[in-house]
Amino acid sequence: MSDVTTNIQQLKDLVDNFVEERRWKQFHSPKNLSMSIAIEAAELMELFQWIDGTDTAGIPHERVREELADVVIYCLSLANATGIDLSTAIREKVMVNAKKYPINRYRGRYK
Amino acid sequence: MSDVTTNIQQLKDLVDNFVEERRWKQFHSPKNLSMSIAIEAAELMELFQWIDGTDTAGIPHERVREELADVVIYCLSLANATGIDLSTAIREKVMVNAKKYPINRYRGRYK
Amino acid sequence: MSDVTTNIQQLKDLVDNFVEERRWKQFHSPKNLSMSIAIEAAELMELFQWIDGTDTAGIPHERVREELADVVIYCLSLANATGIDLSTAIREKVMVNAKKYPINRYRGRYK
Amino acid sequence: MSDVTTNIQQLKDLVDNFVEERRWKQFHSPKNLSMSIAIEAAELMELFQWIDGTDTAGIPHERVREELADVVIYCLSLANATGIDLSTAIREKVMVNAKKYPINRYRGRYK
Repeated sequence: MSDVTTNIQQLKDLVDNFVEERRWKQFHSPKNLSMSIAIEAAELMELFQWIDGTDTAGIPHERVREELADVVIYCLSLANATGIDLSTAIREKVMVNAKKYPINRYRGRYK
Repeated sequence: MSDVTTNIQQLKDLVDNFVEERRWKQFHSPKNLSMSIAIEAAELMELFQWIDGTDTAGIPHERVREELADVVIYCLSLANATGIDLSTAIREKVMVNAKKYPINRYRGRYK
Repeated sequence: MSDVTTNIQQLKDLVDNFVEERRWKQFHSPKNLSMSIAIEAAELMELFQWIDGTDTAGIPHERVREELADVVIYCLSLANATGIDLSTAIREKVMVNAKKYPINRYRGRYK
Repeated sequence: MSDVTTNIQQLKDLVDNFVEERRWKQFHSPKNLSMSIAIEAAELMELFQWIDGTDTAGIPHERVREELADVVIYCLSLANATGIDLSTAIREKVMVNAKKYPINRYRGRYK
């Protein structure tokens, strides 16, 4: 099982089942879940805080993997709680971004 | 196309292609991407800041959808940049969490 | 010694001295300090994550105190590193906000 | 008026007055304020996102000043809302940190 063979719904169901088994939906208001995402994002960022942006050797890969998983798990929970189809939302946002940042003008630069 | 018919790799490729077309990988160090995730997570959280946790009617669904997409897009970018198989990382983290929070002890409570 | 008898510069000097004694300024680029502020802010927020907004009894006061101190310590470090006079910056920002949110229109509501 | 002539209490009073005039304390639960701090911290961080850590010329000083003020303003609000004496909290935390990171072992390094 890998990213090639796993669809988004399977991961949503995995997370939903975990939450449901523990009767945690009562705590999982969208507001609280948005806080969880931000908190986990900060824990992920902390792993990179004191290493130089160009220092790839210093990256603690295993911990990055775990913290990134935590962020996405809460994103899936929020998608579950609010009925968002993530793949559609992402496709639409990438299209919006593609219009906002036309290739010709933004190739190789951000501004 | 929906979460049921979309696998993770398809979304990874979509995001990777967007970044590659603009030659933005030079900016996308893992450190910078971790910052991007945290920044987008804060923008998502901002949508819930002044509404009550129980006020579901007040949730701006369309904007939540867009901001959640932004968070996950950068998560996919970081997974691309660091070679993380997200579905495996998530499955393993959910298993770790399941051991850490046994159903019997944590049903209906967090602590 | 209290907030009434302590000026901002004294706290800036306290923090600056701590950093200087450890020769940590080499790590304290403004970029890294902005990350530190965000990371500490998330740790502060984590203390409130699963408590209800109206539940004042559930607030872990001692830990809030410590984490809030951490956030402000890094804010003072960033002010030191960039030569910002915090009291002037705050006075000016409050004046900007006062114009943006006139009392008559915003009394009792945010929007 | 500057950081040398301004004590913490004066800034706390300035912020408290701003909030009180608008009757905003009803929105300012400690939980919500902790979210505000994290959101403003992310806006501050966003100013540094795409610039290199060593690029001091690229720093948008005026905006850094404003966003840093926003972070500290909400920190002062949280201190007001929870009755925290910030100067004492900071002095105590710096002492804790000084024990945790003895000068001899940590001079010039973080770990």
